[in-house]
Amino acid sequence: MKRIYFDNAATSYPKPTSVLDSMLEYIKYIGSNVNRSSYGFSYEAEDILYETRQILCNMFNGDDCKNVVFTANITTSLNIILKGLLKSGDHILTSSMEHNAVMRPLSQLSLSGINYDTFPCFSDGSVDISSLSSMLKTNTKAIVITHASNVCGTLMPIFEIGRFCKENNLYFVVDSAQTAGLFPIDMQTMNIDALAFTGHKALLGPQGIGGFILKENMIKLIDPILSGGTGSISHTLDIPEFMPDRFEAGTLNIPGIYGLNASLKYIHEIGMDTILNKELTLTKNFLDELSDIKKIRVYGRSDIIDRAAVVSIDVADMDLSDIAYTLDDKYGIQTRVGLHCAPIAHSTLGTYPRGTVRFSFGHNNNSEEIKHCIQALKEIIYGI
Amino acid sequence: MKRIYFDNAATSYPKPTSVLDSMLEYIKYIGSNVNRSSYGFSYEAEDILYETRQILCNMFNGDDCKNVVFTANITTSLNIILKGLLKSGDHILTSSMEHNAVMRPLSQLSLSGINYDTFPCFSDGSVDISSLSSMLKTNTKAIVITHASNVCGTLMPIFEIGRFCKENNLYFVVDSAQTAGLFPIDMQTMNIDALAFTGHKALLGPQGIGGFILKENMIKLIDPILSGGTGSISHTLDIPEFMPDRFEAGTLNIPGIYGLNASLKYIHEIGMDTILNKELTLTKNFLDELSDIKKIRVYGRSDIIDRAAVVSIDVADMDLSDIAYTLDDKYGIQTRVGLHCAPIAHSTLGTYPRGTVRFSFGHNNNSEEIKHCIQALKEIIYGI
Repeated sequence: MKRIYFDNAATSYPKPTSVLDSMLEYIKYIGSNVNRSSYGFSYEAEDILYETRQILCNMFNGDDCKNVVFTANITTSLNIILKGLLKSGDHILTSSMEHNAVMRPLSQLSLSGINYDTFPCFSDGSVDISSLSSMLKTNTKAIVITHASNVCGTLMPIFEIGRFCKENNLYFVVDSAQTAGLFPIDMQTMNIDALAFTGHKALLGPQGIGGFILKENMIKLIDPILSGGTGSISHTLDIPEFMPDRFEAGTLNIPGIYGLNASLKYIHEIGMDTILNKELTLTKNFLDELSDIKKIRVYGRSDIIDRAAVVSIDVADMDLSDIAYTLDDKYGIQTRVGLHCAPIAHSTLGTYPRGTVRFSFGHNNNSEEIKHCIQALKEIIYGI
Repeated sequence: MKRIYFDNAATSYPKPTSVLDSMLEYIKYIGSNVNRSSYGFSYEAEDILYETRQILCNMFNGDDCKNVVFTANITTSLNIILKGLLKSGDHILTSSMEHNAVMRPLSQLSLSGINYDTFPCFSDGSVDISSLSSMLKTNTKAIVITHASNVCGTLMPIFEIGRFCKENNLYFVVDSAQTAGLFPIDMQTMNIDALAFTGHKALLGPQGIGGFILKENMIKLIDPILSGGTGSISHTLDIPEFMPDRFEAGTLNIPGIYGLNASLKYIHEIGMDTILNKELTLTKNFLDELSDIKKIRVYGRSDIIDRAAVVSIDVADMDLSDIAYTLDDKYGIQTRVGLHCAPIAHSTLGTYPRGTVRFSFGHNNNSEEIKHCIQALKEIIYGI
């Protein structure tokens, strides 16, 4: 049975061939650690790391590529940013569409004298931006928001929220898990102070590599929650104050960075626009076909305006886990069912605690697969 | 010029071929995330993760493989353990031979009402165990120690220190960066409560994967410093209390775990004893030859008893960076010069702030390479 992978919001698959080639090149022929040695092979690896920081900095229009930090994943990035920035007595706003990568750190912080509030979203997941002003407190320090819902794909108005942050002297933290590599993100025009990214979703790199980019003014405001050897200023017991070492203790995932380097070049070669258009065309196709299946309800936006290629559905009177299981077992279609680590988003959409079946497309999917999936859903739901 | 890699204490090279094959298998043919999906390919990846936890648990005689946690690197592991365990008012002891992966977190913690003291070591890096009792305070909670110095390879008496911890109701945390995969480590007989490990050194896996193993009694004592989505109990904003999810927020480095899985099987196949004997034979060979070069002083133990395959030297009246550079440039020999992220260890050895040139061997090295290196050192030092 042909495999049809519709779980790109969890991790993208397949990766470009060059990702594997690049990782293989490093592991097989280079192999050295970086910042810790003084021989040619080590410098070669350092060059690739530096180049990868540069590509990411350019992609998101950061201040300076030294402020691109590599982490294990975007969850680590968000923990470092939020826990390093917020101090007892601070208040932070977030949306009611967040993933637990934001909500669980905030929930932990609320035990240490840091308060948060979630601003309301409409039932399609979009932000009620008019509500923001009324939610400000004198101690509000920042806003953290996902760029697109991982449940239903709805895009958040980060340009407008960035402007609001600037007008109100708030730091702006963006979780780009579902958008980096697909949608234009500009830290300058969007007033983003800290951008968290993951390498293994739309950036098409391997799992195990993520990171964040800071504006220059943020560096000293964020206390590093992880420290250790950096291969720099080794005579002191303090983590360096300079970037990126301030936030990069311990050996990095160098094979992962080599893989990400290759996938970023692949995206550049194909074109982010081309990839996004392909994904949204498939999404529109899928949404159009779904609208003919009466027992299916689609959550989030009904069109492809302001959305990523993520579609969540419910099916009246049916067990969603059964549907997902049958899609895989009988049709080879891989989706994700449940709450998608985002319970408050499901509450907002009205799908809590039941959850949804989520279909998330990549640019390697095609319209035949969509057709096959629609047919599968009809067979599962109506037995035809 | 043939490459001679003597920097295995920084990261092992080359990796077993099966490491690459296993990572390729995952990235190319499986690709799915784990704990987040409900289809066959995802379960396949989960099986490999589970098996890897089992192998590690068996290797170190842990309580239960669910208590094997994967992290990005051993630095992250030590941060999670130390910062999660120690609370304001606590005191911890460590040795005066530690790497900054231990010292920098302790230095940070000292700003939050947690005190530490370093117990003395002899000039060969071995612990003065008789000093331990006198350093106990009423609020001493734990001892953290490296199993072997990354500077000079001296092994620490972790069996004896574990017994001391048990007798004095202290938690025992071990940093196995230089020993896991080479020396027997038994969490039960050595009374180790938390064992931090890295995948990319003697465990022969790729960079980007590390972890730790906890005794059952430690789980609730350690507050997670990182939280986020785990794919489990997704309806709550709290990180799960159960293992390993309590400490595994965000997408794991699955390619890295596949690589580690393969390297662990490779170690099992070759035999840890065989690997260690090979490395120590080369070390003895090197030490014997070095003793004939009068201008070279070797730090640490002069024999291969209680040591790992790491040799640090100083050369009278010469610039050590020049030596390391020439070894690479002219002879293809890759070493590491400086303080090796362990300034207090260098102070103990009497090599601070000058540092040393460090040679660290792997089982893929051979006696021809040692011979070539000795000849190179003679040429560099005496011009012959």
